[in-house]
Amino acid sequence: MDAITYKPIGVIRTPFTDVENMPVQPSGGTGIAGRVELNLELADGLKDVEGFSHLMLIYHFHLSKPYSLLVKPFLDDTVRGVFATRAPMRPNPIGVSVVKLTKIEGCILHVENVDILDGTPLLDIKPYVSDFNNVQDERSGWLTERTKKARMHRSDGRFR
Amino acid sequence: MDAITYKPIGVIRTPFTDVENMPVQPSGGTGIAGRVELNLELADGLKDVEGFSHLMLIYHFHLSKPYSLLVKPFLDDTVRGVFATRAPMRPNPIGVSVVKLTKIEGCILHVENVDILDGTPLLDIKPYVSDFNNVQDERSGWLTERTKKARMHRSDGRFR
Repeated sequence: MDAITYKPIGVIRTPFTDVENMPVQPSGGTGIAGRVELNLELADGLKDVEGFSHLMLIYHFHLSKPYSLLVKPFLDDTVRGVFATRAPMRPNPIGVSVVKLTKIEGCILHVENVDILDGTPLLDIKPYVSDFNNVQDERSGWLTERTKKARMHRSDGRFR
Repeated sequence: MDAITYKPIGVIRTPFTDVENMPVQPSGGTGIAGRVELNLELADGLKDVEGFSHLMLIYHFHLSKPYSLLVKPFLDDTVRGVFATRAPMRPNPIGVSVVKLTKIEGCILHVENVDILDGTPLLDIKPYVSDFNNVQDERSGWLTERTKKARMHRSDGRFR
């Protein structure tokens, strides 16, 4: 299959300048403020975005190491398949986070609940609508007991 | 900012061979079965995936038209900013759907609730864990009254 090329549409600014000591999931980033700086020429695409309380940011893990198919996630001491984790060293290092939108000023989106590294290239913004996920009877595999811990947990240097 | 290049990790197979008459959101694809064919060399990355009831598929809208910053979504007759919609003609045509995992056989993942075109290049698979989204007091802007309709709605040819 052919390679697919994207161009960043902006950059994500956060207090996290180092992969160590970051929230390991959005729930751990609760209340932490950041901003999304959209490229100026894309401003028209933000029409109506202010009506959504939450946005899905899709971004490139620009500092991730070459990919591993088996990883030891932050929340676990067991080696897991990379597709059963959100670890950054994926075959295509794409990250997804749901953030809270607090204000839009021109091409700057002020957001909260960021678990993203400062300077991360932004690929896409989508409205977050939980109804669209259509999830019933959710099971979270190895994460079932560990999601609560994620709120408190900070990363170590393992994915540096 | 530099271009980012990804390589598809597999392909998504669904009953939808034409962009017309597709579900416009995952909730409209309820019960519709498809499969994810992961590239064989990535099989190890599927360890532990079977424990999750739902997966987030990230994929490339391979048939989408050049992007528009203002689009008329399926659920509306008003022009909206593209980042306030899930329309495919985005600056980076990346799609995200949450699907139900029913069975894994080798590198084939059998899934349900697909709203994806047959032959779509797959970029990533992530476990879906609603707790990680950390969403409270959700507001869905222009979609508030329209999410219910999405369950029933099929697409027309406008994004062909």
